[in-house]
Amino acid sequence: MELWYTEEQTDNVRLSLKVKNHLFSDQSDFQKVDVFETFEYGRLMTLDGLVMVTEKDEFIYHDMIVHTAMAVNPAIKNVLVIGGGDGGTVRELMRYKHIERADMVEIDQMVCDVARDYFPTISGDLDNPRVNLSYEDGVAYMKGKENMYDLIIIDSTDPVGPGEGLFTTEFYTDCFNALTENGILVNQNESPVYEQFAKEAIRANAKLRKIFPIVEVYSAAIPTYPSGFWLFGFASKKLHPINDLQADTWNSFGIKTKYYNTELHKGAFALPSYVKEYIANGTV
Amino acid sequence: MELWYTEEQTDNVRLSLKVKNHLFSDQSDFQKVDVFETFEYGRLMTLDGLVMVTEKDEFIYHDMIVHTAMAVNPAIKNVLVIGGGDGGTVRELMRYKHIERADMVEIDQMVCDVARDYFPTISGDLDNPRVNLSYEDGVAYMKGKENMYDLIIIDSTDPVGPGEGLFTTEFYTDCFNALTENGILVNQNESPVYEQFAKEAIRANAKLRKIFPIVEVYSAAIPTYPSGFWLFGFASKKLHPINDLQADTWNSFGIKTKYYNTELHKGAFALPSYVKEYIANGTV
Repeated sequence: MELWYTEEQTDNVRLSLKVKNHLFSDQSDFQKVDVFETFEYGRLMTLDGLVMVTEKDEFIYHDMIVHTAMAVNPAIKNVLVIGGGDGGTVRELMRYKHIERADMVEIDQMVCDVARDYFPTISGDLDNPRVNLSYEDGVAYMKGKENMYDLIIIDSTDPVGPGEGLFTTEFYTDCFNALTENGILVNQNESPVYEQFAKEAIRANAKLRKIFPIVEVYSAAIPTYPSGFWLFGFASKKLHPINDLQADTWNSFGIKTKYYNTELHKGAFALPSYVKEYIANGTV
Repeated sequence: MELWYTEEQTDNVRLSLKVKNHLFSDQSDFQKVDVFETFEYGRLMTLDGLVMVTEKDEFIYHDMIVHTAMAVNPAIKNVLVIGGGDGGTVRELMRYKHIERADMVEIDQMVCDVARDYFPTISGDLDNPRVNLSYEDGVAYMKGKENMYDLIIIDSTDPVGPGEGLFTTEFYTDCFNALTENGILVNQNESPVYEQFAKEAIRANAKLRKIFPIVEVYSAAIPTYPSGFWLFGFASKKLHPINDLQADTWNSFGIKTKYYNTELHKGAFALPSYVKEYIANGTV
C-alpha cells in the first residue's frame, strides 16, 4: 500500500507527494494542522490541506523573505514578523547578531507547538531570547503602533481564508505607521500563475502602492508551492531594493545561504513580462 | 466521472491536471505521444507520459530558449534546432525577419504531425519557407558539420531515454565545430531540484565547459515541468551572455514577449547559491 499526500492547488491542478508516515493531525481553533513524512521533501506541515513548509525546500522561502530586506538595510535592529509560526523566518533573522529584537505575532499556537515537536531544524529560534513570540491576531496587534519597527515581515497564509485581513488597505496603513523612517515591509505575495490567488495578491500589491512610495515585487522558485513560482512584495518608505542594495556590507556578514545571494537579489526583481503587466494593471 | 492526467515527475512526486478530453494517443517509432485537453493549461502534449508542452505555459520555455541568445547576438542569421518538434522554437525564431534560415532536425515526425493537428498556435511556422525541417537523428546529423550555424538550439527531451545522445561530449564537440566564430549553443538543462535528471544535466553542463570557452546557466519558472524551476545552458565561442547583451538592439526589434525581457535576461543568469554550487562541483 502506498500513501500519498495530495494538495488541490486549484480545482484543476494537484501536487502529490509520496508519504512514509502521517505523523500528526489535529484541528486548532483556526485551521487543520497535519505533519507528514515524505520521501522527496522530508517532513511536511500542511494547514487546511495546503503546503506550509517542507524540510527540503523551506530554505528558499525563508532566505528570500528575510535576507532581501536585510541586504537593503543591513542596519535593521527591530523586526516584526506576522505569522511565520514554523519559525523559519525568525531563524534567519537571528543569524544577524545586530538584530536586537524580533517580535513575532502568530495567531495559532498549534503551528508553533507542532514546529517545535516535528521541525527542530526550522523552529530552533522560536525560543531565542531576542525573539518575543505572542499568540494573537496580527491585524489587531498592528492597531495604533507607531515608529517601532525597521522591518515588518508578513509571513502569512493565502489572501483567501484566515489570512485575508493581512491583505487589506487598513492593515497596510497600520504597518506603514508602525515602521521607522527607513522602514521596509516584505510580504509573501502568492503565485501569479493560478487566477484565484493571483488576482487577490496582485490587488493587494496595488493597495500597497497607494500607501508606500516604493513598492516592488520579486520572485523565487519554490517547488512545493502552487506552480513553483512565488512572488514577494517589497514596500518601503525610502530605500529602493536595487538602488540601495548594500551588497558589500551584506556579504561582509559571511552569512552562508543556500538560495539567496546578492546577485540573485537583483535578478529576483527582474520579473517576467506577463507579471509586470499584471502589476501595472493591478489585476490578473 | 473526473479524468486526470498524472505525471510521475519522480517516484515520489506527481503532478495531476484535470482533463476534459483525451484527444490523441499513439505509439511512434520512438515514444508514446498523447494529447489531452486540460482545464487549467489548455491542450497538453506528452511524450512517454511526460509533459512536453501545454498551450498555457509554452511561451515561457520558447521565449527563454530563443530570445536569450538572439539578444546576445542580434545578427544571428543561420540557426539549427535539434528537436523542438512542437514548433514553438522555430515560431519564435521566425519573428526575426533577418534570420535567413532555420534548419530543424526532429527525430520523430509524429510529434510534428500531432503539433500541426492539435497545436496550431505553436506549430504554425513548421512549414515556413525559411524553416527546413528534416526528420532524422540529431546526433547523426551533427557529424562533420563545420562553420555553418550562428546558433544551435538543443530543444530535447530528458538526458535519460531517447534524448541521451544529446548530452554527450562527442555531440557537443560536433556542435562546436558546426558553429561560426561568434557561435552560441543553447540547450534545455533540466531542473536542479530532483536528483535523477539534475545529476545528468549538471554533468552535461560540465562537459560543455571542457569544449566551450564561455558556459553559463540560466533559469526560468515553468509551472508544468518538474519542480517548476528549469535551467538552460548557454555555451559560446566568444560572446558572453551578460557582458555582450545587446539590450537596445533587441528592444528596437519590437518583439512583444510574455515572459522574456532584457532585464529578466540578466536576472535569469543570477542563480540560487545551491545551483551555483552544483555547477561548480559538476554534480548534484
